[in-house]
Amino acid sequence: MLRNSVFSCFVFYAVLLVLKMYMLAFITGQLRLRKKAFANPEDAMRHGGPQFHRLDPDVERCRRAHRNDMENIFPFLFLGAIYSMTGPSLGVARLHFLVFTACRMLHSVAYLAALPAPTRSLAYVLAQVPCVSMALQILAAVATYA
Amino acid sequence: MLRNSVFSCFVFYAVLLVLKMYMLAFITGQLRLRKKAFANPEDAMRHGGPQFHRLDPDVERCRRAHRNDMENIFPFLFLGAIYSMTGPSLGVARLHFLVFTACRMLHSVAYLAALPAPTRSLAYVLAQVPCVSMALQILAAVATYA
Amino acid sequence: MLRNSVFSCFVFYAVLLVLKMYMLAFITGQLRLRKKAFANPEDAMRHGGPQFHRLDPDVERCRRAHRNDMENIFPFLFLGAIYSMTGPSLGVARLHFLVFTACRMLHSVAYLAALPAPTRSLAYVLAQVPCVSMALQILAAVATYA
Repeated sequence: MLRNSVFSCFVFYAVLLVLKMYMLAFITGQLRLRKKAFANPEDAMRHGGPQFHRLDPDVERCRRAHRNDMENIFPFLFLGAIYSMTGPSLGVARLHFLVFTACRMLHSVAYLAALPAPTRSLAYVLAQVPCVSMALQILAAVATYA
Repeated sequence: MLRNSVFSCFVFYAVLLVLKMYMLAFITGQLRLRKKAFANPEDAMRHGGPQFHRLDPDVERCRRAHRNDMENIFPFLFLGAIYSMTGPSLGVARLHFLVFTACRMLHSVAYLAALPAPTRSLAYVLAQVPCVSMALQILAAVATYA
Repeated sequence: MLRNSVFSCFVFYAVLLVLKMYMLAFITGQLRLRKKAFANPEDAMRHGGPQFHRLDPDVERCRRAHRNDMENIFPFLFLGAIYSMTGPSLGVARLHFLVFTACRMLHSVAYLAALPAPTRSLAYVLAQVPCVSMALQILAAVATYA
């Protein structure tokens, strides 16, 4: 399958997005240490005492960004892989993957930097366009097998 | 792989479920606007002021439904794809996919409409049956490679 | 693809991890019943009354463990499948899968048992090593298709 150039193109952007998600997890961890705000008492005990078992708005913001990624990037990993098997042209397919990747990168930046609304929402909606497009093209390709 | 009719059948239901999840995200967004309950201060500022940076029980209900979908539909996307490669009969495989899809649709309806317990829990448990069945059949197929 | 021994080896560990996640969901449900702490009013009504629509620290701990699994095991399901297609040796590939699986099992135990820090964090970091390794090897394999 990696000799299929559309699939390999998809894989490239998909792995970048997975690494971006790992980056969010890393930032969450760093924020927890810097702001001394831990989700578990045993972590707080190791880093100063039970009073640091607490919420922090910056940590929560990062976790919301991460959750939104799960809601959107994980379905992309599925849709992009299947869409690549439906025989789209490389140019059209790459456009789908590029728009999604760029918008989700912007989404994370807009979330973490708390950019004024509706920057983040626009990035979210624009990223959905290639996803819904792929979903509909896949349905058209397999509808006879339902 | 899309010429494999079991796999294509799986893909059909899987994409429907992904679209169902997108629908939950859409409903969450609409509820946030209608109930004026935003997770981020910058969103609240755009829609009336900082007092709308608040929780709302209907929004939280929708988010719980969405999270439960992530916990269950994402593993199905994996299990269903692999199970399709183990050579099941189309009829048996379609039954697995149909039961899961129908139960997860019911789960969302029961969650959003707050149907009396145990409707939602029953839908959840019934949807797990084909998943565990597929997991065990996959394990049986690959156990010699562990 | 199941005749590819690296892929089948990956599938074996991947399915074990999915079953482990189902186990966490099951434990969460049992804890909700035992501690009488329900996320939804309709569940509380069925199990004693509206006062049981409440949070419980043990239930929340289990949910954090589950969410962390979603953040880490779902990307593994993707990376492991693609990595298996890049032609790694079976020994090296199995080492990647085994380290990840063992560390994520330990992560769940450390989370649920609230083992002293940094046991859980170490398991998390160690499990990331094979994931980042696979991500980089995949990127190297498909970089020319970007």
